[in-house]
Amino acid sequence: MATVPEYAIIVAGGSGSRMQQELPKQFIEVAGKPILMHTIERFYAYNPEVRLIVVLPQQQLSVWRDLCRKHDFKLFHMTVPGGSTRFGSVKNGLDAVQGEALVAVHDGVRPFIDVATIRAAFEAASVHGNAVVAVSPKDSIRELTPEGSQAVPRDRYKLVQTPQCFKANILKRAYEQPEEEYFTDDASVVEQTGEKIVLVEGSYRNIKITTPEDLILAEAFAR
Amino acid sequence: MATVPEYAIIVAGGSGSRMQQELPKQFIEVAGKPILMHTIERFYAYNPEVRLIVVLPQQQLSVWRDLCRKHDFKLFHMTVPGGSTRFGSVKNGLDAVQGEALVAVHDGVRPFIDVATIRAAFEAASVHGNAVVAVSPKDSIRELTPEGSQAVPRDRYKLVQTPQCFKANILKRAYEQPEEEYFTDDASVVEQTGEKIVLVEGSYRNIKITTPEDLILAEAFAR
Repeated sequence: MATVPEYAIIVAGGSGSRMQQELPKQFIEVAGKPILMHTIERFYAYNPEVRLIVVLPQQQLSVWRDLCRKHDFKLFHMTVPGGSTRFGSVKNGLDAVQGEALVAVHDGVRPFIDVATIRAAFEAASVHGNAVVAVSPKDSIRELTPEGSQAVPRDRYKLVQTPQCFKANILKRAYEQPEEEYFTDDASVVEQTGEKIVLVEGSYRNIKITTPEDLILAEAFAR
Repeated sequence: MATVPEYAIIVAGGSGSRMQQELPKQFIEVAGKPILMHTIERFYAYNPEVRLIVVLPQQQLSVWRDLCRKHDFKLFHMTVPGGSTRFGSVKNGLDAVQGEALVAVHDGVRPFIDVATIRAAFEAASVHGNAVVAVSPKDSIRELTPEGSQAVPRDRYKLVQTPQCFKANILKRAYEQPEEEYFTDDASVVEQTGEKIVLVEGSYRNIKITTPEDLILAEAFAR
């Protein structure tokens, strides 16, 4: 059991555009239940005491409440309205984190995160201050250059997933910075404050559901 | 219709180790048929005149013949024994390419390549000498450094798929070089001879089936 409280900020800011659907992707049903509910369940499976903060676009909050009622979804969580960017959304979520704590930031549409990986990330963050889940790329990688592109050694790269876990004070300090365009995840925000990022091995199952192909895979995984 | 002959070298060197199966992954059945047969069918769907060269490990050639008989698979192709590495396998396949031609090199375990992408790659290669199919990464990317790792801008990178298409003389000249460890695909081999590599947009459906997760997705796609 953790000695400090553990929070999970679940960021679900999707609008559904890339999914070619009206319904925001976090609300799309997989195995009869919105994706976001699967994601929340994984964190409760890891730690029933986890303090769960779900960040959703303002206009989706009432939809989510209705969905929770419809699906009789009772796992305790608070909801927070998101910002106009992911950075803003995480920042809003962080406002609800109190005192000394560990905080995992996780994509709402990564419902197949396994408990062992969540645990490994929290444990590493409690030791090192941060821990970011990542996997090795399966494909060759090319870097775009002003002249075109060039091959780069793929074993020198990692594809970043979530959760990304941090000591709360480190993450809060990082999110006091002004937002930069190159902040594509929490690791890049925290790194900017001088922290060395620690990597934890992820899983190819821990997909981020962003395209119709991903949804097919999600249905297959859930079965 | 192409003015020069079009070849496709289908490289299927897998042993099955990563798949935790005895059966080499190219022989695993998806929708009732070995993956490799699906892949071959895609190239025939693009061009029924394509000259198809399937490269397989020596000890799998008779297994493949038996599978073709069992599945009554009659699409015309020649088989060539592979080398000890992917580089050696492509080189063996290239020996069967005659005269002026366009050559696509394609992974045997990428059965969901669509005809439009094959066409785009051949067309670009006929103009520019080469064309390599690639997609943008969906995840944040970190580069490993001697000190740990650092965030890099993901819009500066492309994940490389196949087919990779070339004018035959360009590809043959490239494969006369001694093999290097950093040759992870054909583009990196050809690039080493001074060619500028041309990228063609791929698809997230064009997965390389290498893990059990991929196999689940493949079954779902095929349905």
